[in-house]
Amino acid sequence: MSALTLHPDRLFPADETTRAIARRLYQEVKDLPIVSPHGHTDPSWFADNELFPNPAELLIKPDHYVFRMLYSLGVPLVDLGIPSKAGLPVEQDPKKIWRLFAKHYYAFRGTPSRMWLDYVFKEVFGFEEILSDKNADAYYERINSALQTEAFRPRALMERYNIEWLATTESPLDDLRHHKKIRESGWKGGVITAYRPDPVVDPDFEGFADNVARLGKITGEDTTNWKGYLAALKNRREYFKSFGATSTDHGHPTAQTSDLSVAECEKLFAKALAGQCSKQEAETFRGQMLTEMAGMSIEDGLVMQIHPGSFRNHNPHVFEKFGRDKGADIPSQTEYVNALKPLLDKYGNDNRLSIILFTLDETVYSRELAPLAGHYPVLKLGPSWWFHDSPEGMRRFREQITETAGFYNTVGFNDDTRAFLSIPARHDVARRMDCNFLARLVAEHRLPEDEAQEVAIDLTYRLVKQAYKLD
Amino acid sequence: MSALTLHPDRLFPADETTRAIARRLYQEVKDLPIVSPHGHTDPSWFADNELFPNPAELLIKPDHYVFRMLYSLGVPLVDLGIPSKAGLPVEQDPKKIWRLFAKHYYAFRGTPSRMWLDYVFKEVFGFEEILSDKNADAYYERINSALQTEAFRPRALMERYNIEWLATTESPLDDLRHHKKIRESGWKGGVITAYRPDPVVDPDFEGFADNVARLGKITGEDTTNWKGYLAALKNRREYFKSFGATSTDHGHPTAQTSDLSVAECEKLFAKALAGQCSKQEAETFRGQMLTEMAGMSIEDGLVMQIHPGSFRNHNPHVFEKFGRDKGADIPSQTEYVNALKPLLDKYGNDNRLSIILFTLDETVYSRELAPLAGHYPVLKLGPSWWFHDSPEGMRRFREQITETAGFYNTVGFNDDTRAFLSIPARHDVARRMDCNFLARLVAEHRLPEDEAQEVAIDLTYRLVKQAYKLD
Amino acid sequence: MSALTLHPDRLFPADETTRAIARRLYQEVKDLPIVSPHGHTDPSWFADNELFPNPAELLIKPDHYVFRMLYSLGVPLVDLGIPSKAGLPVEQDPKKIWRLFAKHYYAFRGTPSRMWLDYVFKEVFGFEEILSDKNADAYYERINSALQTEAFRPRALMERYNIEWLATTESPLDDLRHHKKIRESGWKGGVITAYRPDPVVDPDFEGFADNVARLGKITGEDTTNWKGYLAALKNRREYFKSFGATSTDHGHPTAQTSDLSVAECEKLFAKALAGQCSKQEAETFRGQMLTEMAGMSIEDGLVMQIHPGSFRNHNPHVFEKFGRDKGADIPSQTEYVNALKPLLDKYGNDNRLSIILFTLDETVYSRELAPLAGHYPVLKLGPSWWFHDSPEGMRRFREQITETAGFYNTVGFNDDTRAFLSIPARHDVARRMDCNFLARLVAEHRLPEDEAQEVAIDLTYRLVKQAYKLD
Repeated sequence: MSALTLHPDRLFPADETTRAIARRLYQEVKDLPIVSPHGHTDPSWFADNELFPNPAELLIKPDHYVFRMLYSLGVPLVDLGIPSKAGLPVEQDPKKIWRLFAKHYYAFRGTPSRMWLDYVFKEVFGFEEILSDKNADAYYERINSALQTEAFRPRALMERYNIEWLATTESPLDDLRHHKKIRESGWKGGVITAYRPDPVVDPDFEGFADNVARLGKITGEDTTNWKGYLAALKNRREYFKSFGATSTDHGHPTAQTSDLSVAECEKLFAKALAGQCSKQEAETFRGQMLTEMAGMSIEDGLVMQIHPGSFRNHNPHVFEKFGRDKGADIPSQTEYVNALKPLLDKYGNDNRLSIILFTLDETVYSRELAPLAGHYPVLKLGPSWWFHDSPEGMRRFREQITETAGFYNTVGFNDDTRAFLSIPARHDVARRMDCNFLARLVAEHRLPEDEAQEVAIDLTYRLVKQAYKLD
Repeated sequence: MSALTLHPDRLFPADETTRAIARRLYQEVKDLPIVSPHGHTDPSWFADNELFPNPAELLIKPDHYVFRMLYSLGVPLVDLGIPSKAGLPVEQDPKKIWRLFAKHYYAFRGTPSRMWLDYVFKEVFGFEEILSDKNADAYYERINSALQTEAFRPRALMERYNIEWLATTESPLDDLRHHKKIRESGWKGGVITAYRPDPVVDPDFEGFADNVARLGKITGEDTTNWKGYLAALKNRREYFKSFGATSTDHGHPTAQTSDLSVAECEKLFAKALAGQCSKQEAETFRGQMLTEMAGMSIEDGLVMQIHPGSFRNHNPHVFEKFGRDKGADIPSQTEYVNALKPLLDKYGNDNRLSIILFTLDETVYSRELAPLAGHYPVLKLGPSWWFHDSPEGMRRFREQITETAGFYNTVGFNDDTRAFLSIPARHDVARRMDCNFLARLVAEHRLPEDEAQEVAIDLTYRLVKQAYKLD
Repeated sequence: MSALTLHPDRLFPADETTRAIARRLYQEVKDLPIVSPHGHTDPSWFADNELFPNPAELLIKPDHYVFRMLYSLGVPLVDLGIPSKAGLPVEQDPKKIWRLFAKHYYAFRGTPSRMWLDYVFKEVFGFEEILSDKNADAYYERINSALQTEAFRPRALMERYNIEWLATTESPLDDLRHHKKIRESGWKGGVITAYRPDPVVDPDFEGFADNVARLGKITGEDTTNWKGYLAALKNRREYFKSFGATSTDHGHPTAQTSDLSVAECEKLFAKALAGQCSKQEAETFRGQMLTEMAGMSIEDGLVMQIHPGSFRNHNPHVFEKFGRDKGADIPSQTEYVNALKPLLDKYGNDNRLSIILFTLDETVYSRELAPLAGHYPVLKLGPSWWFHDSPEGMRRFREQITETAGFYNTVGFNDDTRAFLSIPARHDVARRMDCNFLARLVAEHRLPEDEAQEVAIDLTYRLVKQAYKLD
């Protein structure tokens, strides 16, 4: 079995000159606090501060990067203990699940999951050998024991990880009880929420009409009409702000925006509530809501994040048996230049607004996103996302974005993860890849090293806080 | 004139550390047998085992990579001896054709054709100088003489090249007489066929209705109705299997699949036979046939290859005068996420099925193909294909695929060639480029060298045999 | 403040072996004359040969690469002195504008603008420190003084820069008085014009009908009918040729071409003149005009340049207040394989025609443009353009084009600039990046160094003159 090592120069270019520069740049950013302005950790962890359960529960079952790969190789999801909403019997023994994972660990070679997991295994649990079917049980036992110790409680980990800010994501229907509990506990950890209104602005979302009704109930607004509906959404934005929210997040199938008259909005909203929107009307409504949200952001200062382009639940078999978020979301081609125009025509030149754009379609980096962000004052570019949160993905992002939009229309790194343990690993990869890219610019005499050093710190820390208003 | 050398480190990264790793990885794969599971060599070569004719006939006239480049620079196809179906007088003197080729050899600088040809010139024929107009005649004479020797008979070359398996491609209308002759000859060479049903499943194919009628005659099934037509296709699949076929191959304009009711199929099939399909209906029919073929594959175990996205015969002038396959096929944008859904909805989770996807549209590598293959158990990714069967093409493939789909959802290399002499050159380029990519992962401490070594062997040999069921 | 240095090895790969090769290749091309066959400098500069005004007027206000970046960071265009067609009061003090630019100079890190500007600051004005808010005034004063000297008159700069040919771009409505004046002055500088008919062939162009009427007046042809209109366009082509034009240039929203009957053309032309074209009809008309222009090129030998894919004036707020060309043109997806077919079907195999294709959509490099140019004798590929006129953009161009189309279907570099001072900087970047790419091929033993050297000279000089018929 191979030794598990985390080489200090990992992810740096092999060329010695460039590597030495990368090393120096990284030296100045490696210990900066982690600012995680966008992610999906569970706020109850920090509210309740309970011990994590077993290794399978923590490292396999919630990580769709992991189980989608195993599934692609023919491993049934039931064998991995993925809960079946259709009531299929699933594996209950976490040790068996762990062994199955270990047996297929070879399949992650060359993937970021492998890099993140190895980091966790070595840095957090101290393993010296790469995981395989031979050492699966030993791995399981050691992780399982560690998880029972005080040092592995969520708040302790957050402090040990030097996480300055950590944003979770909640629906406007959420009462933020966990965030409330955190506040009331007196704990000083920087856990905040972010406002994700998809369930109440997307007519295709399961239970949309009920969700809107609940929104009315929660806010005391009459959400059966357009005006009351908007008031209710604003009301909840304020509530979220009172729990530290500085941003909203919008996960739409496309980047489409709309700018309809109030009369059209009222009509479309009524149709949406009645469940009578055509596919195209639902799209228009979602697009209108992006524009509405931009208008609210101008008023209340919340930064807008747009995450378009995922074909959710592509596999109906998996969806019926196991539900959402099971690794079956597939990107599709995404257009921005025409799609964003209605919103930009209305608000694109208003310096009070800040919109952070993401994509799963890398073809738009140099063609659409960099030219848009390099012109419009309201637009900034989020980091390489999801399938592109990886060394090569990050490299392509910088190579294709920087020459047109520069570094200062970008916002640093997002880990975007549910996998709490992997947060430092992910930020470390991003820091190393930024230093890698900058080191090449320095080695090729395209940027002086002192300026590259400043950029490295900006990308790691300053720009993140500034873009997400976490100062 | 420059010396013709094949540097032992060619295609390896210049950085010394990385190059040394690449060299070590390559050392372990360079002599592995060639497994060529997808190509277009002529089975009659191996059946009849006759001498090849002159150099122009062997190296220029069948190689559309070569003559398309000359044509793009203004060289008339008639001057290259390309047979004219319109009866134009064409050059008959192979020596003159060879000289014209030699004169334009500079135009191939930086292309894979140059690399393959140089390999053949040096390794197979022992030339010491790069081809040019100055040494054109000497080249011609030496190659011409060699072709008259026993060592250059097809079977001798196949053995010398250490080709373990070589698949040709035939239509269901083919009687496989050459494969039959090979079997009966007692020769042990691993030449097998593959089932390419385009002429009988594509309503736009020249002579479709006649082809289907012939299919009926050959199989004794009534192919005037849907049921008999499917039975006939199955019948031929069995026949192909008896000559070693382990795969089918489908060259469609798009990746569209369909899943119609039997009644709809019957209706559409009747229209297709009557030559009354609209453009859209022909597309739907082809898409339905992919789904039908997937169903048959579940039963008979043939691996399915889908090669979409080529706009065939883009140049009507060339088509009218010279016919198909004259270098005028141009890729076009190809969508997979929606296109494959009908087939995947039906069979995407059935572990008995294996579909190998190819593309000419590299934009889908990271956006569509890797996410699809990294989820669906039935999907694997074929290597970079046709215009992308090149060092940079292979590099982009690995860089954009691996982080999401890993190595183990890919299937090794296909040479896909008619140019028999170039097969070892092509496999050598692929092996070197895989070692190049892996060496970078090792040098950047992203993968331990022992694991990279295992992957290199898997990509060269094990995965190919496994994916194409050639074990 | 950091020292401003132009390292002799800038833009060469860091690896020492490769860098040494790049250095040798560059040595042979760095002093070759500049051939600038496509650009937008003002011919009155060379006609009148007057002194340039202040630094802001020369380096900021005409350079939309510069002010779009500042605008994207929230700097109002009025503060940069950009003239407002809506009559907004704008900053008049060039020194204040310069300071604002200097303060934001950090934002250009990693962009080609930074590289071009640093080159001008160091090579042309001799600065030793990088521009910042601290030395902004000193910069301003020194540049301002230099601009008052004889050495900075346009003709002196053109000679000092060793520019052999410099093409400007004019509308057929232009009387070419500046070019006339240059001719009559007896000055031997190679300033020529190029024929850009957009204002008289695009029904969506502002004032189209008036423009066509003026065209009739200028040429004495009856441009109220199709036949007279074509005659007038031909007439102006001849006039442009008499002032050295060797090319035409076409800036269309898409690459669409059409091939209509004369009757259809007449009808559509009448509609266009009457301002009654639908969006689709305007597109068809522009497409028809590309085909007409190709036909005229076959007769008169002008090389055709097609520059499609820009969504002009995407920001209506900026357009209304500041007009065209204010950094708000955004690329959009561009298709070529189907779009060019009507023109190619008609003229694609006529060796008398030469069409140079450009793109802002890099996804077509390997998928569409290289395969098209690697087959059709009339097609060549223009260099990486506009947002892609940058080190990484040039690298992607060569990596994605060369393996299919080779070097000899490309045409060398275009600077395409209004920023006269930056011309040598831009050509220098292109020469370095070509040597960078070629050095990698040599270092990886993919091309012998003597051939790479020949290619470097071809790309810098010979191919440009040949492609643009400047021999």
